[in-house]
Amino acid sequence: MSREMNEGARVWLVPDGFIPEESSGSQESHEAVCVLNTSGEEARLRISVYFEDREPVKDIGVVVPPERTRHIRTDQLGRAEIPRGVPYAIRVESSIPVVIQCSRMDTTQAALSLMTTIAHPVRP
Amino acid sequence: MSREMNEGARVWLVPDGFIPEESSGSQESHEAVCVLNTSGEEARLRISVYFEDREPVKDIGVVVPPERTRHIRTDQLGRAEIPRGVPYAIRVESSIPVVIQCSRMDTTQAALSLMTTIAHPVRP
Amino acid sequence: MSREMNEGARVWLVPDGFIPEESSGSQESHEAVCVLNTSGEEARLRISVYFEDREPVKDIGVVVPPERTRHIRTDQLGRAEIPRGVPYAIRVESSIPVVIQCSRMDTTQAALSLMTTIAHPVRP
Amino acid sequence: MSREMNEGARVWLVPDGFIPEESSGSQESHEAVCVLNTSGEEARLRISVYFEDREPVKDIGVVVPPERTRHIRTDQLGRAEIPRGVPYAIRVESSIPVVIQCSRMDTTQAALSLMTTIAHPVRP
Repeated sequence: MSREMNEGARVWLVPDGFIPEESSGSQESHEAVCVLNTSGEEARLRISVYFEDREPVKDIGVVVPPERTRHIRTDQLGRAEIPRGVPYAIRVESSIPVVIQCSRMDTTQAALSLMTTIAHPVRP
Repeated sequence: MSREMNEGARVWLVPDGFIPEESSGSQESHEAVCVLNTSGEEARLRISVYFEDREPVKDIGVVVPPERTRHIRTDQLGRAEIPRGVPYAIRVESSIPVVIQCSRMDTTQAALSLMTTIAHPVRP
Repeated sequence: MSREMNEGARVWLVPDGFIPEESSGSQESHEAVCVLNTSGEEARLRISVYFEDREPVKDIGVVVPPERTRHIRTDQLGRAEIPRGVPYAIRVESSIPVVIQCSRMDTTQAALSLMTTIAHPVRP
Repeated sequence: MSREMNEGARVWLVPDGFIPEESSGSQESHEAVCVLNTSGEEARLRISVYFEDREPVKDIGVVVPPERTRHIRTDQLGRAEIPRGVPYAIRVESSIPVVIQCSRMDTTQAALSLMTTIAHPVRP
């Protein structure tokens, strides 16, 4: 067991998801779920996407290798098929503790803008 | 009872509220209180708005259905009638645990800017 | 005792303070320490400012009335006299629990940018 | 022992690191790991950098003097040699409790953008 085996939490929530419809310049508007797995084990994630007016899409599988980060674009989340311009939210459950941070790049208007936050951890 | 029944907290605080007076381009300056309810029950919220120089407006009711997110614009918070260009703060109390994130879009100057943070949880 | 008597924490830290040297357009580059006091009592704050290469300026007094927010600009923090263009950090200690969020507006280049985060609470 | 001896945590994680490839105007795109040490003792940090597809670079040493802040640019992290345009993540371990906040300035397009978050604390 390495020293970092239990760093983070196993369940994380992010209420403010939104992929802007428009982009300008060289950068596409997008969001990313960024994961850090400092342990010596593979983290098996199940990502669920919640909406305002329809059923959630649950348990999309993603793997983060030991001692690696992964920055997962939400517009490439397989069967989630999150539409642009629609409010959504994300829940990540991991087989082992990890840390999650979510960021948005918005290039709707003639320059880009960023926002980020560490997600809210709910289960050790 | 589903696995996610107690995810989050019942009381959340956000000190930095401010709806910019000006907008430019296609996007209006605004703020949103984003809620995620991963439980199988309806969350009944009571939102209170605090100011620098007058009494708070308390207990505006909002409902978030089971397994849904809602992104609530603060300029559409009914009787709160938050003026633009004035510092305010928000307290959200929920009947069941939820997670709250607050974001601002500012288009005062010729491009947009975003900021966001998970709110501060105070009561499990 | 009102229901909200102990919401937040009494000590908060913010490592990334920086007041940009330049501004453009109608908005001045600045930072704000935003406080929410949901209690029925006055909160007496003592704000300390830390630098990279000199002694901290400690215990600047600020009062936040009961059930009020205050958005305190750091360029108006009395004897702190924080220079523009210099890294600093902030510690806030309060007589009763409050919540602190810090935000920066940067208008150095031809549009504005915002960033924000809830501060890190250290003492209940 | 001063009153602030144990403020913060000894291990912090930041999943979303990314130094943009392009810059424009007077400000260079960059990221900073901002540290606040409110104690009367020197904090000896060991910073590790994680990537998506190769081994981490571990234990780069940085010192933060007593009662000081340091804003450490990640493009100046010695042997880490973080490439621009590549996702990475950061782990900071400190000899004594400190607080960590990470911020990005992105000037890829014709205005600057900022984002920030308090890092995620894992070990008291």
